[in-house]
Amino acid sequence: MVSALRAGSIEVVDLTSPLSSSTPVIQLPPEFGQTAIFELEEISRYDDRGPAWYWNNFRSGEHTGTHFDAPNHWVTGKDLADVASVPAQRLIAPAAVLDFTAEAAKDPDFLVEVDHIKIWEEHNGPLPDGGWLFLRTGWDARSHSQEAFLNADESGPHTPGLSPECARWVAEESPVIGLGVETVGTDAGRGHSFDPAFPCHSYLMGSDKYGLTQLQNLAALPATGSVVVAGPLPIVAGSGSPARVLALVER
Amino acid sequence: MVSALRAGSIEVVDLTSPLSSSTPVIQLPPEFGQTAIFELEEISRYDDRGPAWYWNNFRSGEHTGTHFDAPNHWVTGKDLADVASVPAQRLIAPAAVLDFTAEAAKDPDFLVEVDHIKIWEEHNGPLPDGGWLFLRTGWDARSHSQEAFLNADESGPHTPGLSPECARWVAEESPVIGLGVETVGTDAGRGHSFDPAFPCHSYLMGSDKYGLTQLQNLAALPATGSVVVAGPLPIVAGSGSPARVLALVER
Ligand SMILES: Nc1ccccc1C(=O)C(=O)O
Ligand SMILES: Nc1ccccc1C(=O)C(=O)O
Repeated sequence: MVSALRAGSIEVVDLTSPLSSSTPVIQLPPEFGQTAIFELEEISRYDDRGPAWYWNNFRSGEHTGTHFDAPNHWVTGKDLADVASVPAQRLIAPAAVLDFTAEAAKDPDFLVEVDHIKIWEEHNGPLPDGGWLFLRTGWDARSHSQEAFLNADESGPHTPGLSPECARWVAEESPVIGLGVETVGTDAGRGHSFDPAFPCHSYLMGSDKYGLTQLQNLAALPATGSVVVAGPLPIVAGSGSPARVLALVER
Repeated sequence: MVSALRAGSIEVVDLTSPLSSSTPVIQLPPEFGQTAIFELEEISRYDDRGPAWYWNNFRSGEHTGTHFDAPNHWVTGKDLADVASVPAQRLIAPAAVLDFTAEAAKDPDFLVEVDHIKIWEEHNGPLPDGGWLFLRTGWDARSHSQEAFLNADESGPHTPGLSPECARWVAEESPVIGLGVETVGTDAGRGHSFDPAFPCHSYLMGSDKYGLTQLQNLAALPATGSVVVAGPLPIVAGSGSPARVLALVER
């Protein structure tokens, strides 16, 4: 593996969105608590506060930027793992990448149904046991702008995702350990109005599964065969964490 | 690789210290800016602030807990990479683990010299080109307590590390991309009084190399042959970041 990495026959693809104060964050209906945006606070910069060193403090939401959703994020998984208790062995896993870029370009409210996944499986083989289902939607191209990324109007946000029945199927009947998306959260923009509300969160967390969000560069991954390293910070009692997410791809 | 992970012939060892408000942080002389400790702030917990979900904001130093030092952390590397610009390919690399547990137990101010490394190389082969030099000192056993971990008295902190000449050699003459340690920072506790001050930071950052700190479980790694995934958050303009660090070990 080391020699393959060195020779470039294994490429490392960075799936992580850069973290800054312009990283988009989810906006919930106003009656609910809202997440912090990412902020830096300088401690010293080669100055009298520290002549030879530069460093910062920072503030963030656990669910800001490219992040990992742990089971206890949702009430359905409230007695299951916090983000620090997710077994390390589950952080390195294969990914299946399903491409719905064309559908999402035509309809920002596009929802993946179980049948879409079954058709994909006919061509690519079964979803990976213990791996990730990654939804490619082209939404990463919008992440430079909170407005384009959330795509909200008077009726709320419009971003693609899974139908409620598909979320239930992925959680309860498929062999994957989690769902990875390019959007601000694992649920579709209209997920707040679904039954159950936020079905991906509700069903996946309740099934001891995980979420990964705001992924970039899924276009650089093959449909099958990549291995993903998801690196959330092990925040004790945390419900999730910004995460570094890297993929290994054989060339 | 996927089948080896599944079959357990590749084990994932978590080298990351858990993050909480009791995670130890470095204490600099009082005239300098100090880092934040890690803190959580609850947004909602299955309550009126968010009926179905639990999540937090958090505050941290870039150099709190298990963290990655980028070249721009030090004035010697101030025009080199910020933590978001470190190439992803360099985040997956082999590690050499040098064990000085016995020496550090006898003398908390123990310093590794170039000759110690040369003797290690006689038995284990050369340090890995493009890989990490990991210093095992047993210091991870002290990380439950800020006091035991910093081990300070009137004369300042006493923790093991590299001599100034060894730091220069690792930075300028060895093939590694960085130094990983179990202590609060890459420099020895007495590093503030060395010439140059904090020589590991000064030489490594100045050579476009990296640091990794507060590693745990190095005892579970072989002397050679493990592959380490270092996952700092890609903080734009950041000098470093808390990082998830995982090692792959063939059994
Ligand atoms: N949909 C949500 C509703 C409430 C809280 C968070 C979310 C997320 O999407 C998230 O985890 O990023
Ligand atoms: N030695 C230092 C001096 C000043 C600032 C930070 C450090 C660290 O060790 C660090 O990077 O954790």
